[in-house]
Parts: sequence; structure tokens; C-alpha cells
Amino acid sequence: MLIILDKYISTENLNTVMARLEQLNVMIQVHEEKDKKVIVVLDGAEYLSLETLEILPGVERIINIKKPYRLVSREYKPADTVVKVNGIPFGGENFQIVAGPCAVENEEQVMIIAKAVKEAGAVLLRGGAYKPRTSPYSFQGLEEEGLKLLAKAREKTGLPVVTEVLDVRDLEVVAYYADMIQIGARNMQNFPLLKEVARLEKPVLLKRGLSATIEEWLLAAEYIMQGGNPRIILCERGIRTFETFTRNTLDLSAVPAIKTLSHLPIIVDPSHGCGKWFLVPPLAKAACAVGAHGLMVEVHHQPSCALSDGEQSLTPGKFHKLMQEINKIKQCLT
Amino acid sequence: MLIILDKYISTENLNTVMARLEQLNVMIQVHEEKDKKVIVVLDGAEYLSLETLEILPGVERIINIKKPYRLVSREYKPADTVVKVNGIPFGGENFQIVAGPCAVENEEQVMIIAKAVKEAGAVLLRGGAYKPRTSPYSFQGLEEEGLKLLAKAREKTGLPVVTEVLDVRDLEVVAYYADMIQIGARNMQNFPLLKEVARLEKPVLLKRGLSATIEEWLLAAEYIMQGGNPRIILCERGIRTFETFTRNTLDLSAVPAIKTLSHLPIIVDPSHGCGKWFLVPPLAKAACAVGAHGLMVEVHHQPSCALSDGEQSLTPGKFHKLMQEINKIKQCLT
Amino acid sequence: MLIILDKYISTENLNTVMARLEQLNVMIQVHEEKDKKVIVVLDGAEYLSLETLEILPGVERIINIKKPYRLVSREYKPADTVVKVNGIPFGGENFQIVAGPCAVENEEQVMIIAKAVKEAGAVLLRGGAYKPRTSPYSFQGLEEEGLKLLAKAREKTGLPVVTEVLDVRDLEVVAYYADMIQIGARNMQNFPLLKEVARLEKPVLLKRGLSATIEEWLLAAEYIMQGGNPRIILCERGIRTFETFTRNTLDLSAVPAIKTLSHLPIIVDPSHGCGKWFLVPPLAKAACAVGAHGLMVEVHHQPSCALSDGEQSLTPGKFHKLMQEINKIKQCLT
Amino acid sequence: MLIILDKYISTENLNTVMARLEQLNVMIQVHEEKDKKVIVVLDGAEYLSLETLEILPGVERIINIKKPYRLVSREYKPADTVVKVNGIPFGGENFQIVAGPCAVENEEQVMIIAKAVKEAGAVLLRGGAYKPRTSPYSFQGLEEEGLKLLAKAREKTGLPVVTEVLDVRDLEVVAYYADMIQIGARNMQNFPLLKEVARLEKPVLLKRGLSATIEEWLLAAEYIMQGGNPRIILCERGIRTFETFTRNTLDLSAVPAIKTLSHLPIIVDPSHGCGKWFLVPPLAKAACAVGAHGLMVEVHHQPSCALSDGEQSLTPGKFHKLMQEINKIKQCLT
Repeated sequence: MLIILDKYISTENLNTVMARLEQLNVMIQVHEEKDKKVIVVLDGAEYLSLETLEILPGVERIINIKKPYRLVSREYKPADTVVKVNGIPFGGENFQIVAGPCAVENEEQVMIIAKAVKEAGAVLLRGGAYKPRTSPYSFQGLEEEGLKLLAKAREKTGLPVVTEVLDVRDLEVVAYYADMIQIGARNMQNFPLLKEVARLEKPVLLKRGLSATIEEWLLAAEYIMQGGNPRIILCERGIRTFETFTRNTLDLSAVPAIKTLSHLPIIVDPSHGCGKWFLVPPLAKAACAVGAHGLMVEVHHQPSCALSDGEQSLTPGKFHKLMQEINKIKQCLT
Repeated sequence: MLIILDKYISTENLNTVMARLEQLNVMIQVHEEKDKKVIVVLDGAEYLSLETLEILPGVERIINIKKPYRLVSREYKPADTVVKVNGIPFGGENFQIVAGPCAVENEEQVMIIAKAVKEAGAVLLRGGAYKPRTSPYSFQGLEEEGLKLLAKAREKTGLPVVTEVLDVRDLEVVAYYADMIQIGARNMQNFPLLKEVARLEKPVLLKRGLSATIEEWLLAAEYIMQGGNPRIILCERGIRTFETFTRNTLDLSAVPAIKTLSHLPIIVDPSHGCGKWFLVPPLAKAACAVGAHGLMVEVHHQPSCALSDGEQSLTPGKFHKLMQEINKIKQCLT
Repeated sequence: MLIILDKYISTENLNTVMARLEQLNVMIQVHEEKDKKVIVVLDGAEYLSLETLEILPGVERIINIKKPYRLVSREYKPADTVVKVNGIPFGGENFQIVAGPCAVENEEQVMIIAKAVKEAGAVLLRGGAYKPRTSPYSFQGLEEEGLKLLAKAREKTGLPVVTEVLDVRDLEVVAYYADMIQIGARNMQNFPLLKEVARLEKPVLLKRGLSATIEEWLLAAEYIMQGGNPRIILCERGIRTFETFTRNTLDLSAVPAIKTLSHLPIIVDPSHGCGKWFLVPPLAKAACAVGAHGLMVEVHHQPSCALSDGEQSLTPGKFHKLMQEINKIKQCLT
Repeated sequence: MLIILDKYISTENLNTVMARLEQLNVMIQVHEEKDKKVIVVLDGAEYLSLETLEILPGVERIINIKKPYRLVSREYKPADTVVKVNGIPFGGENFQIVAGPCAVENEEQVMIIAKAVKEAGAVLLRGGAYKPRTSPYSFQGLEEEGLKLLAKAREKTGLPVVTEVLDVRDLEVVAYYADMIQIGARNMQNFPLLKEVARLEKPVLLKRGLSATIEEWLLAAEYIMQGGNPRIILCERGIRTFETFTRNTLDLSAVPAIKTLSHLPIIVDPSHGCGKWFLVPPLAKAACAVGAHGLMVEVHHQPSCALSDGEQSLTPGKFHKLMQEINKIKQCLT
């Protein structure tokens, strides 16, 4: 922690700062830069927030030179973490495909899509039973009925399922049916929910918030890991920017950034990332080339009739073609 | 709802679109613009999401010309809504001050601050008992103990209290102690929480999400109103932008925008809006001049020792001076 | 300048850093924080960009603790700068109104509007002769013909005029007719243009770029001041964000921020800030209350026939009413 | 063009709208949607901006359903445009590498780097002679001296050169030395400069503005094409967002978006896109996989001594390794 002072800070103001630091019982060293004073806080300031010192007269800036997260950092664990979802490994050298409908609509729909994505090479089935919808008038999901249909699809296809939970009160039932719990973008900073999934044995898919910085995202993961659950997979799904042609702006630089800062696996969701089906294949290939540990892709057999996100869903045929191209890229990358 | 087609759409593709619309059983009219075809959906499309039609070949764009929210709109209720919090009216011609510490830290702190803000003219006490913190290592709040201290402060000062709820499971206890429930920026789209506060008799303070558009914000309010609770006060608290000097960018244009689009009261939180105490007074005055129905200001008697947000808190002295200036502006505005 | 090193940096890598610093001939001190090494660069690093050192192995971060601008800073000149435009003072305790059409369209239009804004209390006439238009098919301005009409309006009304220059080659003719030169948002970082206006005797109105941080904006002003022209007035006109209801998001916090960081006058353009005429009056009042040194408002007698920005222009009647309200606020603020 | 009216618009207000449309001499049709009136403007509204009608009472929204650009659109020219730079084809099936230093610093530097990038497979040399720098105290470039060094490097290596122009007055000299003229991000909406390069025979590299939408970017290209120069190559280089870990957020979705909307070639600059050398290789591979027509990469033999952008430059060794990986991806993509 560094405290930058105005070089000409009055003795009285300097004493106030020093008194406060003594009170906090931290070791310090003071140095004079050309026209600043710099206090280097040597120790004891572990998780103290000294930001409030910024309010003291003569204090110009507080600079935290320590990363605010710990357990999820590369420094803490240099080796890649591999998270197994029903035996399927995510992270390290693995590249896995998660696919399925945005929302579970009915049995026929789930079965047709599950069968199709498995044939094309997906290893995990996605599907929403509880849907976070911007409008109260939009389809809100089949809830437990949807979970049962996902379980049925798993029986038929052998694909483990990942599905989103919105409400801590649904966590038990979702965990009962799902193989991996998804925390959606809107809940990335739903701290009670993070604390609850931290208590589970199940792996957690943590999507990046619409306007979350990489640091805030890793701190959300820190909540889960510090709470006892190290089985976390991150998912980049686009951030909110001024651009309106795409639904979000997919931030593929987040993939190598996360791989540098953290040991956790990271996959990419190009469907939400762009919001337009015809942009999904090129972005999926880019996500593979940028070094992601996998993809999560929305597939629907009748996109124009989908109850949600039809405009960003691939048909089984387009998805199958994409998987073949992805395989070619994976081969030449290794 | 308008559907824009490529003028040269093939008969086959046009038939697909028409078949889908017939299936949806909506009345339409088709017209030819210079080099587009325009389908005007006349009726029946109330809450249908026709967006998915965008995926059909030959369809260029779907344009929803109806506002997606209804109950919170001016069209639905032309007159200003006045929400009473323990008899204190928000909205209409009223301008009310909510003030207090960011977080409840201990009895002495709450009492000193509550007394000070009341003397300065605040009519409601704010204070966090459950704190949403970006880092799991930051102070998380005193929880129910904090609620009890707020209740005590209310006894002593007569100020009703508003406090934030993060978890649906805490709603009952929070509602037991609080006079108004706050939904924080990170929970603006926590839909289960919105649906629960919709069932309460208590007024709800709905803060704008960090990256929420005005439309998304009003749709969050629609969740609460459509769920049965019309006692909603909106609170602008800054949005996330590229600017780093301020913690957020306070969007004061949202105040007249909301007053045009909706009948709900809207107040402004300049403390979170800028994140720096010395910017709070000028922004508070601007919020008053722009037509807000009130302010929510963070006050702390020892900002440099605050357990959270000290750098954006006013001292009682500065707050008192600000209230006097605000009163002058209010007078000359009326 | 601070250089943060990994505490466990190898001797070899540390030597590389030290060698480079010696080569740059700067004085340093090295200190050990809990798990970082901190190099404080004491002197000589005035305007060196040491950022490139970040590329050396073992270097974690370079932190510049000195403000990158100098002449425009409060530290350099504590007292407010007052810029006179034809004798009319901007800055300090003054609050001045600049108004007029977005673009000069014809003589009748300029005369009607100039007369109206003067009667309402404007002290400067604005009007575009050279227009930066997003589309090549939009009206590009009357160019020198427009400048002549502005000069005619000045003769008739006595109002000095401010108008935008887009091209260094037009600077001489624009400077010949105008009393103040406007650098528009799109040209805030048009450095050749900044260097040229720096050579003029005329005052310069420097608008904030669409996505410029406050620091970048002040650095643009530094170009002008360092080039020899201290007569600079800053103008906040809204920044680009994700919000689409407003054309831009007016950042009123920039006003007190600039007044803290710099001695230069700052005015606000609510018309471009929001892009909707009905939001202009409340935002203009807010700009006055937040402490701006003045306003720049677009006025048109027939907004629905305006060749540009009609949707954000006030009619003379609405402008006159706004001026009366502004006067009331100004009175109670002093 | 569509004009959305409040269904309950008064006859008087409707007549005003109709009168204005008649005055504009456009053909229209009026239709009633459930609770809106919709006016479809059939013809004659080519490049009229009817936005100003939005100001008329009873008018809710003006919707332009026609793309605002024409010559650069796929509709206008369905086939890919191939732009030749000294015989080197950009666009279509080609994938070309542009590389070199951020800024030309001295003869030795340019020669070493030019030789290295050519050996590694670059076909074009980049290098800045006129530098747009945020601070007036940063290195501003060698100007004509730099152009001469680029020409020398071309002689020695046979690599054509691309370099940036900032000032219309330098265009002649830059065009004399350069094989392609670069319009930088900060000048994407420098309309006088766009109009001048439109008059040249030389190809133009048009970088996306820091906060430019895809539509604004294509409109900037429209300026050049409509002015007479169809030899345009677009370059995605990252947009400004709230994320601070990266210098900009590289928007790779812009590549397939542009390829859908326009016939022009588009390359990607991952160096400015992220601002950190270690993120450049993965993003370069992603740009290749997403379908870009080429790359522009910054290379420096001594990044820690570079006069600008050292922290985002690759060493010749790292660049050589990247080129080999890129070649593998290109092969498996075809």
C-alpha cells in the first residue's frame, strides 16, 4: 500500500496521517519524491482498506499495489486448475463444448436439441429452467419442470447438464438436478448466492457481469473459493459498451488476461457475446484461437419460434458445421 | 411492432414470415417503402417477443414501437405518484433529504450521525446493515445487529429508516425493522428479490444498476408494480463509464427523463455518483436544480475511520452547510 | 514515478532495470513492501515516459504520481483564470450565456435568432459555418458565407460570435470573423489544430471529446497553453456511454472536478449533452447549480425545419423562459 | 423512413406534421397500429434528415430503416473489394501482415526492425513519422526525416510502407513517401482530412475511432469513397470501455459485422487493441480465426527503450514465433 502526500503537507496534517497509521498499527517508511512525499506501508495492511485515508488533508492518493484477490491468483497457485464436471475435465489443455437451448421449453425441444448437440460433439448440455428476463412480461422459464426435462435429456444422451440458478431458495433443487450450477451475468455480484454456491460440492460456472472489470470478476470468484468451493469455471459473455450493432461486446482479451492472472479455467459464450446468430461461428473460432478452455453455444432447432434468444441461436446444422471447423483449428493449434 | 423486410425478399421467404405471423395470430398490414417492405403488426402482439423473427431470411429488423413497460409509465398514470414513508411524502412537489452513514458500525456512530443529519434537515435515516462488497475481505455489515441499531436511532430521533436488503431470506427481518426497503444497484435485476418486495406493504427504494439503461430500470420497477407494490421510489446513483476520476458518472439527465416517461418519484445519490466527498455538494445542488424529488447523502463524523466509503462521506459540518445551500435553491426554484 | 517490482525478482532482472534507470540518469530509492519491491524515482524523470519499463521481466507496474499536465493545473496557477471574449469575462465569479443556432442556414434565420437570444440575456452568439457531420450526405455548413452572416449578426446585435473550425487551412478566415474559436468534440485531439490555435491571440473554446477522460481533456488544453495561448474556456458537452435515450450522457461532475484540478473556466452545453430539447432546461439549471461558469445553448425559431440538431434546439420562447429561471438560481447561489 | 405518432395526436398537431411532409414533398402512407399511428415515408426522403420532425407535438419517434451509408455497403457492391498496395492484395481471400515500430526513431532502429519483420513474413512496413500524442511533452515523431527513413527501409527491404498523416498540410509529403496513408483512430472523424485523402490515388488505411460505432466508421469510409477514392482498408484497433486492465477493448465481432455490412477489407491491430505485449499473440491468432483480412502488429527490437508504445511491442523473436503460429491457423482455416 502506498500513500502519496503533497510534498508541502503541513506538519499538523502529516501528524494526523501518522497518528491514524499508528492507530492501524502498520509499519511504514516515508520518502521524498521530487514534489511528493511517499509513504510505503510495509506490513500489517493485509486487508485493511486504507482508501478512507484519502479524505485526510494533504493526502493525494492511496495506491494498493497488492492484488485484491488471493486464492484465485496465479501467484497463489501457479498450475492450471482442472475442474471436472461429471468426470469431464475443464481447464489445462482441455477444450470442451457446452451447448443447448437458451431456455428449456418442452420435452420434444430439449430432446431434439440435446441429441443434435451431442452428435455434433458437445460434452455438456446447457438449458435455462429459471430465466432472468428484463421484462416481467417475458417467458420466465419452466422452473422445476424444466430441471426434470434436463435430467431426462441427460438420461437419454448421457450429457451432464449445466443450468442457471437465480434464487438462493432454489439452489437445493437446482443442485439436485444439475451437474454444474451457472451464476449468470446479472448475478455475478449477488453475494449471498456466491456464498451459498461456495458451500456446495458442485462445480460453478461464473459468468462475467455486464459491466464487471476483470478484477471484480476474479473477486466474485474469490468469494466462492474463499467460501470453500474451488471448482470454478469462468465464462466470458460480452460486456456492455456504446456499440449497438451487437448485443454486447465480446471481450476476447479477457481470456489471455485471466489465464495470466488466475489458474481457473475460462470458457467463452459467443451467443450472448454478440446476440446475432451469424456472428457466432467466427467468434467461436476466435475464442478457440485466443486460448479459451471451451465454448458455450446456444442451439435451437426452430430459432424463429424460440421463447427466448432465438436471434442468437444456431440451428443444429449450423452448429454441426461449426464444430467441424473448431476441430480443425484445435488440431493445428496443438 | 414493425417488421422491416428486404424489398426483394423471395416469395418463399415472405411466405415463411407470413405463415409464422398467422401462427401467432396477429393482425397485420404490409406496405412498400422505397426499397424496403414494412409489415405493421396491428394487434395481438401485446407482449409477444417477435424479435426471433429477425432470424428469418429476408427480415432485416424488428422494431418495437410500444414501450415495453406499462404500469410505471406516464401514459398509464399521468399524475405524479406520491410515495409516503412513515407519513413522509416523496414525489410530486416534495423534496426530501435522506442521509446517514454508508454502513452501520456501532451504536455511538449511528446515534451521533442520526442526530446530526436530523438537525441539519434530513427526514429519513440511511444506513447499511447488510453490505454488498466487491471483496470478500471487506467489512460485510453488522446484519440484524445493525438493523437493531437503526431502530434504536429511529426511537431517539424519530427519523424513519431505509436500509438495503441483499438476500430474499433476510427480507422478513429487514422489513420488520425498516420503514423503506432499498434494492441496491447490484440487485436492480435480481428478479426473485424484486418479486418478493412486490409482495410487501413497504415502500421500495430502487437504485439504478451500474450499467442499466433507463428502460431496463423502469422494467425493474415494472416487476415490483406488476407484482402488487406501487410504492416505488427510484434513485439515480451514477453509471459506469470510461471516466476514472469519478467512481461512477452521475447521470442527472435521467431525472427529467424519468419524470417524462414515468409517474414515479426519483431521488439522487450524489455520494455513490462521484465517490469523492468534495464533489458531493455541487452535485447535490445540481440534483435539486434538475428537478429530483430528493437526495440520499452519505454522512460520517469520522470519514477517515469509516469502515466503508469514507472517501465519499460528508462530515456533519459539511452536510449542514450543504443543507442550507439546498434550501436556498429550493426556495428560488418554487 | 514509482516502479513496483515482484519481491522475488531475480538479481539479473533487477540489474537490467537498474541499468536502464542509470542510463536514463534518474535518482532513485529502493524499498521493500511486504511482498513487493518499490523503486521511488526521485528526480530527473520529469517528462520521461518510464511506462516502457513495464515490459522488463519482474516489473509489475509503473505508477506516475505526478499529474501529466502542468500549465493548466491549479498547482501551477491557484487563482481562477478569467478569459475575456471581446471584453466579456468568462471564469471566476462570472456566469455567461452563449446561445444561437446549431448551424448558420441563411441571413433571416441568423438575424431572428441572434436578436431573440440577445433579448433573453445571451452575451455571445454561437453558430456553425463549418459543420462536422457524421454523414457526407448531411448539410456541411455555409462555410465563409456563414461566417459573413455571423459578422452581420454581430453588427446588428453587438453580440460577439463563437464558431467552430475543423480545418487548419480555414483557421485564418475563421479567426478573421470570429471573436472566439471553437474546437469541437471530434477535434479535441486534433493536435495540429490545437498547435495552430495556440499561436492565435483569440480565445479558444475547447469542447470535451466524446470519449475523453478529464485528464486527456486537460492535456489537450495543455497543448494550447504550452503553445502560447492561455485564453482557454473548457466546455462539457456530454460523453458517450451505453445509454441510448439521451444522445450523450452529460457529465456534470466534470465541472467541480475541473474547477478542482485546473484554473481554467468551464461552461456546459446541455443541448449536445442530451440531444432532446425538453431535457435542456432542467440540465441547464443543474449546470448553473453545479458551478459552471456559463452555458452554451442551441436555439432555433423553427426547430422542425432546422438543417441540423432541430430536435435539441429550444424555441426563442422556451429559451427566454429558461433564462428567467437561470437568473433566479444565480441570485440565490450568490 | 418511419414516423411514429401518438395515436391520440390532435388533428391540429397531425396537420402540422402533414404540412411539413408536404413541404418536403415526400410520398407517404399512414397506418394505425394498436395505439400508435405510423407514417411510412415511401419516397423522396433519400438523404433528408427528418429527425427534426421529432420535435413536433404528437411525434414519438423517427425511425430510419435505410442504412445511412451507400457506396461502402454490400448491397451496393456484393463482391469483396480487393485493395492493392504496391501490388500486394488486401481483401477477398488474402491475409496480409503489416508490422513495424510504433514510431520511427532513427535509421538503425527502422532498418533492424524492417529486416526482422520481413524475414518473419510481413509484407508491409508500418512506422509513425507524425505521432498523435495525448501529452504535448511526449515524443511527437521525426516528421519528414522519419518519412525518409521509411523510404530507405523500403529500398533495403522491398517492403511498401504505411504511415499516418495528422495534418492536411502534410498530406502531400506523406503521400510522396508512403504507399498507403493511415488515418488514425483520433482522426476517423477528421472530415477535412477524409475529404483530402478521398482525392488521392493512394490506398487509405482507416482505423476505427476510440468510441466510434460500426455505423459511424462506415460513414467515415463513405466520405472517402464518395469523394472518389474506393481504395479503403478498415482497421479494428479496440474501443474505449470501462475495463482498465487493457488499454482498449479489441472488438473482434466488428470483423464479421463489417464483412456482412460492407465489401471493404478489414484488418486488426491487436497491439493498440490491448496495450500489453503478452496479450498480442493470442489476440492476433483470434483475429486470424475470426476472418480478418490481415494484421497490423507493433514490433521493436528494444521495447523497454522505445520512444512510444514499448509496452505493447513484440520483440522480433516473439513476432517470428507468432507468424509461424498464424501460418498454421491460416492453413487449417482454408
